[in-house]
Amino acid sequence: MVTGRNENIGRRIRLGMVGGGNDAFIGGVHRIASRIDDKFELVAGALSATPEKAQASGEALGLPRIYDDFKQMAIREARLKNGIEAVSIVTPNHVHYAAAREFLKRGIHVICDKPLTSTLADAKKLVKAAEASDALFILTHNYTGYPMVRQAKEMVDAGELGALRVVQVEYAQDWLTQDETFKQAEWRTDPSRTGAGGSTGDIGTHAFNLASFVTGLTAESLAADIQAFVPGRQVDDNAHVMLRYAGGARGMLWCSQVAPGNENALKLRVYGEKGGLEWEQENPNNLWFTPFGEPKRLITRNGAGAGAAAGRMSRVPPGHPEGYLEGFANIYSEAAEAIIAHRDGDRPDPAVTYPTIQDGLKGVQFVAACVESSKRNAAWVSLDK
Amino acid sequence: MVTGRNENIGRRIRLGMVGGGNDAFIGGVHRIASRIDDKFELVAGALSATPEKAQASGEALGLPRIYDDFKQMAIREARLKNGIEAVSIVTPNHVHYAAAREFLKRGIHVICDKPLTSTLADAKKLVKAAEASDALFILTHNYTGYPMVRQAKEMVDAGELGALRVVQVEYAQDWLTQDETFKQAEWRTDPSRTGAGGSTGDIGTHAFNLASFVTGLTAESLAADIQAFVPGRQVDDNAHVMLRYAGGARGMLWCSQVAPGNENALKLRVYGEKGGLEWEQENPNNLWFTPFGEPKRLITRNGAGAGAAAGRMSRVPPGHPEGYLEGFANIYSEAAEAIIAHRDGDRPDPAVTYPTIQDGLKGVQFVAACVESSKRNAAWVSLDK
Amino acid sequence: MVTGRNENIGRRIRLGMVGGGNDAFIGGVHRIASRIDDKFELVAGALSATPEKAQASGEALGLPRIYDDFKQMAIREARLKNGIEAVSIVTPNHVHYAAAREFLKRGIHVICDKPLTSTLADAKKLVKAAEASDALFILTHNYTGYPMVRQAKEMVDAGELGALRVVQVEYAQDWLTQDETFKQAEWRTDPSRTGAGGSTGDIGTHAFNLASFVTGLTAESLAADIQAFVPGRQVDDNAHVMLRYAGGARGMLWCSQVAPGNENALKLRVYGEKGGLEWEQENPNNLWFTPFGEPKRLITRNGAGAGAAAGRMSRVPPGHPEGYLEGFANIYSEAAEAIIAHRDGDRPDPAVTYPTIQDGLKGVQFVAACVESSKRNAAWVSLDK
Amino acid sequence: MVTGRNENIGRRIRLGMVGGGNDAFIGGVHRIASRIDDKFELVAGALSATPEKAQASGEALGLPRIYDDFKQMAIREARLKNGIEAVSIVTPNHVHYAAAREFLKRGIHVICDKPLTSTLADAKKLVKAAEASDALFILTHNYTGYPMVRQAKEMVDAGELGALRVVQVEYAQDWLTQDETFKQAEWRTDPSRTGAGGSTGDIGTHAFNLASFVTGLTAESLAADIQAFVPGRQVDDNAHVMLRYAGGARGMLWCSQVAPGNENALKLRVYGEKGGLEWEQENPNNLWFTPFGEPKRLITRNGAGAGAAAGRMSRVPPGHPEGYLEGFANIYSEAAEAIIAHRDGDRPDPAVTYPTIQDGLKGVQFVAACVESSKRNAAWVSLDK
Repeated sequence: MVTGRNENIGRRIRLGMVGGGNDAFIGGVHRIASRIDDKFELVAGALSATPEKAQASGEALGLPRIYDDFKQMAIREARLKNGIEAVSIVTPNHVHYAAAREFLKRGIHVICDKPLTSTLADAKKLVKAAEASDALFILTHNYTGYPMVRQAKEMVDAGELGALRVVQVEYAQDWLTQDETFKQAEWRTDPSRTGAGGSTGDIGTHAFNLASFVTGLTAESLAADIQAFVPGRQVDDNAHVMLRYAGGARGMLWCSQVAPGNENALKLRVYGEKGGLEWEQENPNNLWFTPFGEPKRLITRNGAGAGAAAGRMSRVPPGHPEGYLEGFANIYSEAAEAIIAHRDGDRPDPAVTYPTIQDGLKGVQFVAACVESSKRNAAWVSLDK
Repeated sequence: MVTGRNENIGRRIRLGMVGGGNDAFIGGVHRIASRIDDKFELVAGALSATPEKAQASGEALGLPRIYDDFKQMAIREARLKNGIEAVSIVTPNHVHYAAAREFLKRGIHVICDKPLTSTLADAKKLVKAAEASDALFILTHNYTGYPMVRQAKEMVDAGELGALRVVQVEYAQDWLTQDETFKQAEWRTDPSRTGAGGSTGDIGTHAFNLASFVTGLTAESLAADIQAFVPGRQVDDNAHVMLRYAGGARGMLWCSQVAPGNENALKLRVYGEKGGLEWEQENPNNLWFTPFGEPKRLITRNGAGAGAAAGRMSRVPPGHPEGYLEGFANIYSEAAEAIIAHRDGDRPDPAVTYPTIQDGLKGVQFVAACVESSKRNAAWVSLDK
Repeated sequence: MVTGRNENIGRRIRLGMVGGGNDAFIGGVHRIASRIDDKFELVAGALSATPEKAQASGEALGLPRIYDDFKQMAIREARLKNGIEAVSIVTPNHVHYAAAREFLKRGIHVICDKPLTSTLADAKKLVKAAEASDALFILTHNYTGYPMVRQAKEMVDAGELGALRVVQVEYAQDWLTQDETFKQAEWRTDPSRTGAGGSTGDIGTHAFNLASFVTGLTAESLAADIQAFVPGRQVDDNAHVMLRYAGGARGMLWCSQVAPGNENALKLRVYGEKGGLEWEQENPNNLWFTPFGEPKRLITRNGAGAGAAAGRMSRVPPGHPEGYLEGFANIYSEAAEAIIAHRDGDRPDPAVTYPTIQDGLKGVQFVAACVESSKRNAAWVSLDK
Repeated sequence: MVTGRNENIGRRIRLGMVGGGNDAFIGGVHRIASRIDDKFELVAGALSATPEKAQASGEALGLPRIYDDFKQMAIREARLKNGIEAVSIVTPNHVHYAAAREFLKRGIHVICDKPLTSTLADAKKLVKAAEASDALFILTHNYTGYPMVRQAKEMVDAGELGALRVVQVEYAQDWLTQDETFKQAEWRTDPSRTGAGGSTGDIGTHAFNLASFVTGLTAESLAADIQAFVPGRQVDDNAHVMLRYAGGARGMLWCSQVAPGNENALKLRVYGEKGGLEWEQENPNNLWFTPFGEPKRLITRNGAGAGAAAGRMSRVPPGHPEGYLEGFANIYSEAAEAIIAHRDGDRPDPAVTYPTIQDGLKGVQFVAACVESSKRNAAWVSLDK
């Protein structure tokens, strides 16, 4: 019955948004996520690259300040006394770099959707831009915000699995099984906007990041066999990847957007010398834990056996399911804690954890390595490039 | 990928809250629920019956207007030009009546937690108070806000199950298995505050309401065998109930707070001449549908096979789980649509659905009937008293 | 990896069969069950009340000795030097009494399908006949043969749940949802052959027995509301029952043959002061155990956490599912151990457990009580009549 | 209610057994499997390479004819008028070749456990021996005997998934997580007896065969990364494999014996242009089918939606789970149909299907390719060697 999240204490963080106009899926998700714990107030936006749509979308949300483009917004908000303190970037991937750079260089914190950028070159430039800025950079690998993902990480860190041996991670969807033409599908299958990877970039990066987050392992190299099954598709829609981690653990990663019956089937399984863990995104309040030689145990969010890391991320008692939006909100709330500490010149609580620009770089490296390995007939490619 | 909820269009509804101070569970739930779809702004509160706690809790939330008691709040807010338009009542049950009455008589809409009141007499008086008021009354039987519960109702209404025969509903928890002393347990097991029913009032009313909502059937009578298993407990903690519905359908209802391993296991199964439906609150994005003689089908929120009623209540694509808070938010958003229509002198969209004060009265009648039947050795007791 | 069942040691028990001709479902089940552990050899049969069919069915099975009727078979086999030692009675219910009596009085062990008889009067007479005979009587409440049911009983007996409070048992099917005319449905819905109970007799007795077996509790009285939903049906096809057990535990029992989507959904849940257990027949190798305040544990057949009682009933390692036929075979193998001990003038291993004629009597009393209670508007009826 | 298996018609096939003495796991499985449908009678055995144990084990089973070694048995049984017609070979892998050869060359049908042999050279010689013999050769890839595996194959063959794209197959266990010393573990981790592959041979061959069986696809090449995680282990205990099938489908195969929490977790998922199928061995009576754009459907053994191929393999109605032993028995019963047809000079029913020596050869090629690929840093290796 003890829940971890404190509600808003003090004033809300002033937030802007780039992208996320009418029809966009992920923009609405970011907005809800920013509201759930009452830490942010959306006050400005450049919600579309099309000025009319940017205007209409901003009005529909009742935004006080509506901009035609993100650069204009960055410039003006930076000059306002009560301008935005943070910006959410929720555009197609190829815009991330240019948009983020404008805000970072004006000291405005950036909360950016994944993958970090559409090219590895952009990713490296953005890392430099972030390093040169005092502002924070938070990447919304939102699945790391789920309480039971935090629980899993805590248990691995505590050694409850012993030395890790095997990582199985997969992320299967079916919405691109056929040749879809709607908006979400359109830019996500256009390499000029989404990047060189299709499913690898859109969901493979989530899977790769989730495995890294929970295990704490560093992936050193991969061998990939990627495919574009739908005729005419220019980016991969399915990928088979073998992974080698530092220290000897091995992994497999499967991502697919052409697997009928899979809606958003992100699943992680980790096995060590002493036990195993299994977690599925579609059933996120549960975590299976099997100490070797004992019965499987079902650990539930805020239930018996769940620890402090999961408790911090929970709002309601066990059995009252929290979902995708709450997990996403947890990233926003971690960001808020960091932003508030930054505002006050403090360090945030050491428990505060969120995906960083380095995680973003690793994701783009993952995509690039998948593409390169696959071109070289699944040769092993280093992830440290 | 199409989601139903529009985000905030126009200004937020000004909301007050009675109860829900620090430590309270359900107050925080109401606040999050009110924020998710950006239709409300909490601006005033009388968050505790203890003035110091009311003050501290209001400050912690950054409330503009903090009151020591709900009557003072009702009087003053009614006089303010921009006073609250609606109030959430989230106190222990025995306060519901007195608090709701104060706001109703001043034309302030009431969003009240369940059960409606702690006594049947209060419930009947409150119905009259609501009838005498122009204000709306919304009862947060929140489980009716789940998209797949709406889906189930839509399918039953459309005749996909044929004439209904059997209703199986249960709501099992385990948190009162032992003699708990923490705050949540304390008032919920004190008949002077919770009412004559323990598990029957706290969760049995949810189960009863859920079955009625989905089936559209009217329960006419019940036979109940209720128990207080924990030594010294003054209200029931387990109840076995048989139900007879108008038209010939029969039901069983089990509620328990002493069933180890059950966190919040509300489950509804409905069977008709042509098919069956099964739904579980802990896995709320799924609905099993079995047309007789065909394979079982798993219908998912916003997935293939889900209809308009569920779509209206959904925010994100299938496979991205929505949970308890979103279901609760749906009741708030239905309330918001009704309040906005009321404000504008319009009727709300006919699709707008929320639990009413009549549903609340039926819940209190259910509790009273369980207690009476059990005293009379499980004799059949009419629910129409 | 250690399995409990020893394979055949010594010669097979000579078995006869009454009923179970071509087209019969349960006869084939008994035959397979008798073979699995290699303890029986079917050598004689009166497989049908129709002589031609009895002959043809016997020939199809290659039986050495084929009889036209059971009485003739009892008389002749009793005289043979190597006549049958045991007989399986798998006829419609109304024949059980007359057939069993003939074999019991000649000292031939009886393995009889449930319910014991079609009337309470027959049941009482059969109890006397069994008491007057030196032969054993085994009733095939086969679900008590499942290893994880044995595990559940062992855990309850060991006090792992503490004093029991709540028993929830249900057995739902859908095959009689409509007005079926095939053979299985035909005699099972004819009160002159099946008895006064329909679903209560056919499956309710299994549910009632299972609950009694696992909990060790004695049901003292019940209140029942039974229905025949399908127009023209002469026996119940759905029943709602409340139970009171000696010592204060309370139960609910639901059985139905008109619940679309349920194939053979027998499910038992038991809750005590210290923990809970849940078992489902359609997933029989698993048992959920929840010690209060700890994570749920999944105990698997022959897996970690499973004890000796389940091990005795297992043949293959965990994860290699055993099913309905193996559970049924366990009753046969328990019978074989008892028969072999009887043959040798010994007592069987104390671990040997099978349903007795007293369990059969209780089942028929259960049906009679359901019918009587329902006629009296669900009044409480004693089970000790 | 219609079940497919006919019971024994006519006399039982006389069966011998090589291996399977006391303590052996798989021998007992073969014996039960041979009995379930009453088509075989075990009459002779050379149950151990140790004469005393062979004798004791044979006596424990009450075998009429007990031999010290398989060659002696082959010679003598071939000369007997009523000698064995078929032999089950259930020894450690390295004995399969020599034993099978002796029986094949004397015209005795061979039912052999998998993998076919411990070396590729032996496998090729055994293929020649089988080709030179009139006797049948049946390999017990028993998982292809499960009714819902047959159902899956039937649906793929009928084009219900469209052209196949992605195959995901895995087989995870945990019993070798630590350095086990018991008998089962001992020979299975000794390359001189088990062959060059550990998990790849013991369970990977099952997974590979299952995928091939259901999809009908020919695997052309693989890239494998195999590991021996347990210190000192001489064969792989975990393997990650990427597969390329003729026609363009791609697959992943994971097998592991060091994955805590996995008992016998063989799982197959197949995705095509039009739909997907998912099946799990630990829940074998269910098959998930998802036509793209429709709700997931749960097809159950003998239930609505199940077809003729599954019906042939079923004994009891839906909801009455059949398990591992029944699936294994199905292979024996298919063998029996083939043997009886052979005896009569007929061709068996075209529906009769069982794994052949060619399937066995492919399995050994799979193991050899895994080992070779892994040595070559996961280079692609052809499976056609």
